[in-house]
Amino acid sequence: MAYVSNPSPDIGDVVSVFLRVPKKSGVTRAMLRTFVDGEQALTETIVDRESENEVWLRGQFRVENPVMNYRWLIDGVADGYQWLNGEGSHTRDVTDAADYRITTYAAPPPWAADAVLYQIFPDRFAKSVDRLAPDWAIPQRWDDPVVGAGPETPFQYFGGDLDGITAHLDHIASVGANTLYLTPIFPARSNHRYDASTFDAVDPLLGGDQALRRLSDAVHARGMRVMGDLTTNHCGAAHEWFQRAVADANSPEAGYFTFTDHPDEYVSWFGHRSLPKFDHRSQALRRALYEGPGSTVAKWLGPHGLDGWRIDVANMTGRLGTMDLNHMVATTLRATMAEANPQSLLIAEHSHDASADLSGDGWHGVMDYAGFSRPLWAWLKTPGSVPFEPGPVTPVPNFSAHSMVASMRAFNAAIPWRVRAHALTLVGSHDVARIATFLDGDEGLITVAFGMLASMPGIPMLWAGDEIGQEGVNGEDGRRPFPWHDKGRWKMDRLATTQSLFNARAASVALRHGGLRWLAVSDDAVTFLREATDESVLIHAARAPHAPVHLSRAVAGGELAGLAGAANILADRDGVVTLPAYGPAFSMWRVR
Amino acid sequence: MAYVSNPSPDIGDVVSVFLRVPKKSGVTRAMLRTFVDGEQALTETIVDRESENEVWLRGQFRVENPVMNYRWLIDGVADGYQWLNGEGSHTRDVTDAADYRITTYAAPPPWAADAVLYQIFPDRFAKSVDRLAPDWAIPQRWDDPVVGAGPETPFQYFGGDLDGITAHLDHIASVGANTLYLTPIFPARSNHRYDASTFDAVDPLLGGDQALRRLSDAVHARGMRVMGDLTTNHCGAAHEWFQRAVADANSPEAGYFTFTDHPDEYVSWFGHRSLPKFDHRSQALRRALYEGPGSTVAKWLGPHGLDGWRIDVANMTGRLGTMDLNHMVATTLRATMAEANPQSLLIAEHSHDASADLSGDGWHGVMDYAGFSRPLWAWLKTPGSVPFEPGPVTPVPNFSAHSMVASMRAFNAAIPWRVRAHALTLVGSHDVARIATFLDGDEGLITVAFGMLASMPGIPMLWAGDEIGQEGVNGEDGRRPFPWHDKGRWKMDRLATTQSLFNARAASVALRHGGLRWLAVSDDAVTFLREATDESVLIHAARAPHAPVHLSRAVAGGELAGLAGAANILADRDGVVTLPAYGPAFSMWRVR
Repeated sequence: MAYVSNPSPDIGDVVSVFLRVPKKSGVTRAMLRTFVDGEQALTETIVDRESENEVWLRGQFRVENPVMNYRWLIDGVADGYQWLNGEGSHTRDVTDAADYRITTYAAPPPWAADAVLYQIFPDRFAKSVDRLAPDWAIPQRWDDPVVGAGPETPFQYFGGDLDGITAHLDHIASVGANTLYLTPIFPARSNHRYDASTFDAVDPLLGGDQALRRLSDAVHARGMRVMGDLTTNHCGAAHEWFQRAVADANSPEAGYFTFTDHPDEYVSWFGHRSLPKFDHRSQALRRALYEGPGSTVAKWLGPHGLDGWRIDVANMTGRLGTMDLNHMVATTLRATMAEANPQSLLIAEHSHDASADLSGDGWHGVMDYAGFSRPLWAWLKTPGSVPFEPGPVTPVPNFSAHSMVASMRAFNAAIPWRVRAHALTLVGSHDVARIATFLDGDEGLITVAFGMLASMPGIPMLWAGDEIGQEGVNGEDGRRPFPWHDKGRWKMDRLATTQSLFNARAASVALRHGGLRWLAVSDDAVTFLREATDESVLIHAARAPHAPVHLSRAVAGGELAGLAGAANILADRDGVVTLPAYGPAFSMWRVR
Repeated sequence: MAYVSNPSPDIGDVVSVFLRVPKKSGVTRAMLRTFVDGEQALTETIVDRESENEVWLRGQFRVENPVMNYRWLIDGVADGYQWLNGEGSHTRDVTDAADYRITTYAAPPPWAADAVLYQIFPDRFAKSVDRLAPDWAIPQRWDDPVVGAGPETPFQYFGGDLDGITAHLDHIASVGANTLYLTPIFPARSNHRYDASTFDAVDPLLGGDQALRRLSDAVHARGMRVMGDLTTNHCGAAHEWFQRAVADANSPEAGYFTFTDHPDEYVSWFGHRSLPKFDHRSQALRRALYEGPGSTVAKWLGPHGLDGWRIDVANMTGRLGTMDLNHMVATTLRATMAEANPQSLLIAEHSHDASADLSGDGWHGVMDYAGFSRPLWAWLKTPGSVPFEPGPVTPVPNFSAHSMVASMRAFNAAIPWRVRAHALTLVGSHDVARIATFLDGDEGLITVAFGMLASMPGIPMLWAGDEIGQEGVNGEDGRRPFPWHDKGRWKMDRLATTQSLFNARAASVALRHGGLRWLAVSDDAVTFLREATDESVLIHAARAPHAPVHLSRAVAGGELAGLAGAANILADRDGVVTLPAYGPAFSMWRVR
């Protein structure tokens, strides 16, 4: 890392942190501000090195607390005083909310920073064999229309299975993904399976335990990985644990749930009686679900199983009224995973400000709707279309790029960089409208969305089907069966663009591991750098035609070498590089 | 409260919150955003009432969690979308850091919101009798010069005592203060007594337990109150507990401290061997110091003792490396106080962002250096003087009023309003330069400082001597004996101004309990309202001459009735009120 000597230090280590100062800024001095045992410490910086245009100042601190906060106090700027933190510079006093943060908790597995996820909804991805539909299901043929909203929505059964996935690993690898993320695969009474009836077996409708083993072995043989999806907030009312709890108020399982009037009244997710909420005060529940080697969490990890978990409704897990056991759940679950499979990854579902849950000792990262997806959607959204939708979820407004970048900075400044680097970034999922539909089929804008996904920090997730232009007006409608048999329905340009973008990411250490530096932001365009020690990649994204962006040699070097199909750009005789001004457009170049 | 139906609700209560919308703003709709059990809820608002110029929208929520966050989502403004939170409005997505907050924990005692504190450093305030100096002391006569920095600084002994204070309650009441805050009164080996040698007796040099009883009784007979000062982070090396700990590694007291090599090496405050740090893992320590009716904290509270505690170095208490017991200390201490004296007040020393410690279940409030004093100092500081001082404390920069207000909003947005209303606001203390010296004796600026102290939310604290213009270049130098015998050294104008400002506060429910609304901010002036249900007070403060501020009748009414000596102002025939444009100046008016 260019700015931190050690992003994963231990208590007692001395860490150097760096401040990069343009010589023309007029900055005369800077101090490092840390916060130790509840009190601040201000220390001087020294010049570490300098170039023609920049000075690198170095501050040092000893790691005393599990999470170390720091920010910079800068003198010599216009108003004589500035704080610099993760949100930018401020000519006022600032709270600690946007301090840079370094966490001493164990780092995520090294493979995670290179991962590109491919999200699969098993009932809809691929089918290896015809099976008899279960009692709860409405059987469908592969080409039947998906009903996006209606009583039959959760019960339409298309019959995709795990061997179907195994048969299509070539395709998944071809788009640049290297890690499968499967929505739940345990037996349930719905096509989404978030209402598990047991955690002890893979759904026979998906091929059962042996099919998971075949998929896992095939995935691992390619050097790829596969993650599962677990509900820690609730299970299905048909779950064997809940059935025992209902049958016997004195059973251990009765303590797994919160009965307000046994057996009829119990706490459930948003009052859905089909989804009874777990009560994590129960040690028996904790041991069954996620505490120790005998737990569900441990059981499915390993060389013939899963490489990690995505935790469903992680944000509400263990939280109810005056009780908040969320941190205990997250740290216990993480410890169990670390023991069962030290190379496993833990990602939480959380759509909002998750900073209080992200000090680094629990979830490795969250699905980054708040710090990536929503700001990006708001920027790319067609002006004039539904600015303010009512409903239970936050509406997506129209943002200028200024608002997009400020939103991204606000959410990401509140968490350690290492956690942000392991956030699951996405432009679509099984829970929201397909990106192609959301952007009204505007291929230029869709490419910008994919480009940002491929180039920004985080672990990008592709939602299966987006790479061929699948559509859907909401999450359920977007769960359309993958048309393997009819390539006439594939958008081949979209596939080629996706492959090109993610192949570029795979080939670039800067795009995978580099820092992030914003260079220029206007209403319609953003320009930023991803910088690693030996490579810098310049990214320019525009939603519309805009005034051209000019960059000096100090930033853009003498030549920009196009990636993912972008044309090379040479500096003019004054050393100035001018970026293309058309839009919508997305381009990346390696800085030479 | 105008904006919250119940600022101290219980779990299960329904609370109404209100959004005040100027009709000319173009706002077409607003939703209330709360956060329950880790998930957001967006609900519609309804029109509660409207006037010629404003609409009041009402949102409602049921209190589910101990601290409820909320903010507003507003439609119809320029960019189609705004969040409104404690920091203001934002055309971007925001984290929860500046959400409005309502806390269900027990409210502070009712008297606290009407309190004006008067801080006394007992050795320097008043002396009732000559006493023999103790072995550690360098005896001084009352008029001897104070040494602000040097080896003798902590040992100069002037001999002020508690009966001296009792003799001067008339003076304290005359400046508008109603609550004494005494820095430590336990025996020690320094004049500041932050190195207590016991917590079981009042220092005989101060008159002992009986003198405290006399002072307390006299104070209470006037309807006034008195608070003590307790070190929970450390005690003196001469403390009986530490002496026992040193003498016997197997004593219970040995567990009160952290010995790294008994008896020679132990953890102390910033390495000062005279101040061994407490280890709050020891239950015996907790019981001796602050847990239960037998503890130090409980012992001194009551009708013949103290009405509350100020906790020294509260920010570092219980924090060391990987251990953080601060929240446990605060909540336990608070519970003990609530039992010993339900009318007692608990204020913590914390000079920085204390939001993580201020959910309302521990400290009632903190000394508000961060959210009040430093921004105000930075605004009033003479331009050009020392913009960037090195050293262990944060330097005070030069701020425009924009930066001052933004700083105040940032720190206060991070805590519940009820906690902010019980923050201890101050322009000086025994730990910093005297305000008269800091502002270079500029009487106009000093009046602005006092005016802001008298008019802003919080519990104002006067540092004894500031009201007569005492000087001092740092905290120690400012601890000059009060010249009771030589009124020629009193600045009588300063005293009269102070009395006038705080008498106005005492007479105004809006100044004591009202909400805060910023009306106008320029580099050199601020204008704001304090609004209670039946009274509004308009405040205008300027550090220099400035362009005149014009206010409409909707804001300023038809007439402003001067408080604390300000002249009345009538609206002109168009209903516009023009505020005085000179400066430095401070004025308040009741809005009619």
